[in-house]
Amino acid sequence: MQSLIKKLINKNRKKIIFCVLDGLGGLPKDGKTELEAACTPNMDRLADISSCGLHLPVARGITPGSGAAHLGLFGYDPLQYEIGRGVLEALGLGIDLGPNDLAIRGNFATVEYKDENPVVSDRRAGRIPTEENKRIIEKLSSNIDSIDGVKASFYPGMEHRFVLKLSFPQQIQEGGDQINDTDPQETGKMPLLASGENEQSQKAADVLNKFVESIAEVIKDEEKANFTLLRGISVYPHLSSYEETYGLKAACIATYPMYRGVAKLVGMDVLEVENNTIASEVETLKREFEKYDFIYFHVKKTDSYGEDGNFDSKAGVIEEFDALVPEIISLNPDVFVVTGDHSTPSTMMAHSWHPVPIMINSAYPRLGSGSGFGEDACNNGSLGIIKSIEIMPLLLAHADRLKKFGA
Amino acid sequence: MQSLIKKLINKNRKKIIFCVLDGLGGLPKDGKTELEAACTPNMDRLADISSCGLHLPVARGITPGSGAAHLGLFGYDPLQYEIGRGVLEALGLGIDLGPNDLAIRGNFATVEYKDENPVVSDRRAGRIPTEENKRIIEKLSSNIDSIDGVKASFYPGMEHRFVLKLSFPQQIQEGGDQINDTDPQETGKMPLLASGENEQSQKAADVLNKFVESIAEVIKDEEKANFTLLRGISVYPHLSSYEETYGLKAACIATYPMYRGVAKLVGMDVLEVENNTIASEVETLKREFEKYDFIYFHVKKTDSYGEDGNFDSKAGVIEEFDALVPEIISLNPDVFVVTGDHSTPSTMMAHSWHPVPIMINSAYPRLGSGSGFGEDACNNGSLGIIKSIEIMPLLLAHADRLKKFGA
Repeated sequence: MQSLIKKLINKNRKKIIFCVLDGLGGLPKDGKTELEAACTPNMDRLADISSCGLHLPVARGITPGSGAAHLGLFGYDPLQYEIGRGVLEALGLGIDLGPNDLAIRGNFATVEYKDENPVVSDRRAGRIPTEENKRIIEKLSSNIDSIDGVKASFYPGMEHRFVLKLSFPQQIQEGGDQINDTDPQETGKMPLLASGENEQSQKAADVLNKFVESIAEVIKDEEKANFTLLRGISVYPHLSSYEETYGLKAACIATYPMYRGVAKLVGMDVLEVENNTIASEVETLKREFEKYDFIYFHVKKTDSYGEDGNFDSKAGVIEEFDALVPEIISLNPDVFVVTGDHSTPSTMMAHSWHPVPIMINSAYPRLGSGSGFGEDACNNGSLGIIKSIEIMPLLLAHADRLKKFGA
Repeated sequence: MQSLIKKLINKNRKKIIFCVLDGLGGLPKDGKTELEAACTPNMDRLADISSCGLHLPVARGITPGSGAAHLGLFGYDPLQYEIGRGVLEALGLGIDLGPNDLAIRGNFATVEYKDENPVVSDRRAGRIPTEENKRIIEKLSSNIDSIDGVKASFYPGMEHRFVLKLSFPQQIQEGGDQINDTDPQETGKMPLLASGENEQSQKAADVLNKFVESIAEVIKDEEKANFTLLRGISVYPHLSSYEETYGLKAACIATYPMYRGVAKLVGMDVLEVENNTIASEVETLKREFEKYDFIYFHVKKTDSYGEDGNFDSKAGVIEEFDALVPEIISLNPDVFVVTGDHSTPSTMMAHSWHPVPIMINSAYPRLGSGSGFGEDACNNGSLGIIKSIEIMPLLLAHADRLKKFGA
């Protein structure tokens, strides 16, 4: 599909604002979902003159993680392009990644040496405090620089978690990260050696094993965190940019590092937001709007409250966003979209597989029989139930940015 | 899908009338689309006892050309089978094409010779009048017959446009038309030489270059049209016929050459229509109905008025058709279908990507909650939103023309 879209690109000056309320979709409590229960006069009014529907993030019954769900929203098939665990962790910590980098999720662990062989006694080093993690990471950073021309960078996470970035002198080819986890998954076992499924992966695995040895040497006298187990060894996915794929100069307005990271993966400019509020994001939008064709605008807390099981606060965030909608549309985007990346019903306290409401406001709406913006109204909208990867072609169409297919 | 259908064919005497109102789908003006605004008591009454829905010609957000859209309606995946520009031009001029023919869209152009090399100074030869085009085409026809056993036929189009058909002594294999355009797309450049991407295409390109030379020799003294630029060099797509694919003896009733041409591509008999009116098409239908299993009935002017931005006249053509519906169904077809090939909202004055209303009237309707025949009613129909290539299997099913799949 993307190769077809690429051929049909019709550049113009029309602008798209794509608002993603994380985990927007919900389930009813007392008959109404969070979105239906929230008082949202602005979105309701717009929905009545918009193309509405629901989208499936991956496929029926499949609950997506945030990375996969966002790839779908951005038009990259999440079943084809996978964001590795290491890369996702790195993005979550705001770490810059390039095509020469392997990203690795690390756990500090405790081992005991038997006949000089390490045997894992605690896979999480007793969940050491984050402060201790930071101290150890500093020690590693100052003792370990590079091996065989590969540079290591260490980044602390929460408790026992960290990220190791290995920067190679040259680009890692597709399939060059086919390396097993070194975590044996059970105590009483020896950490596994890294090994690669092909020549390039094996070379990387060899370097990785040397780093594991060096790290063990540096931290061998730590009481708990005296070894590391590595997982999710992965390379930055090679995604063609929004500019190449859609002919769009695109920017991201998001406050959480992971979303900023995924946006960067598809070549969006990541804009600065002064503080972690929706109002502050709207300020950034107003400041930068003129410079871009496409702005991805992300609101995080709908998802956080959904995961907490806090129905009212999730609805509250939706209301907070709705109150800012008039300011957003006063910029006169040609296409204004509100949707979520997936559903996070507060009754489930987790992501879910349920289709996600979407409204596309433009000059070319086909109206459905639903009223207002909510799951049931969208189910009666003109779009029907679409796949998330169909959203981008639709937005381009609504912005007159696709030429006719075939003569 | 088609290979599955072929295995399930169940021949019987049931008849299908498939009415295609070109560009039928619309967008609302004052709350109603053209189809919704039109007074269509006959279709409304039928829709209430039919299976209704919407169909997507190619994919979400993709606006199809008429050729691509018709392939979809006829059950041939438009993303798999492309009708080349040259073939479509030829069909539009009513030119017969066979599997031995290359069809080429030509433009007369003006070149200036520098050191005996032609340099394009006007890619459209100042848009010469059609009459002059006809005179030059006659000159070419009487001076150029065949080169290396390949016969040339020239057909004038409007202004600077013409079609060149090259008839080879043997069938052109699939991929035998992988030849570049010779149009350099810019003035100040030399016309390109044709070259082929594989052996057979290269042979054809060699002949083509000889024709370009011969043509240049014949018209070198013309004031403006002293050279030709060739585009869309393409072979008749090898489509299996309706008889082979569906077991249907099929006919086409259409007044415009292009639609008659596409129908011929899938092996339909193209019936004569006395004059360019829907009533005249209905006369043909009544005369020929008994001889066929399947009749494709095309109405052009819905699209033409849509492209003109003439909402009322588009609605008027729909009303004109509706008034003839009782005459059509008095023939007692087992399956009677009304749809469009794509949407042409008069508010957009162009083809669009919006799904197209469809009603399938037969003895086996599943009823939806919509009322009458219109975009919103169809959105509440029992079919949901289907792909255009799913229509033919559905019509066969409604005509009891498909056996059960599997035991």
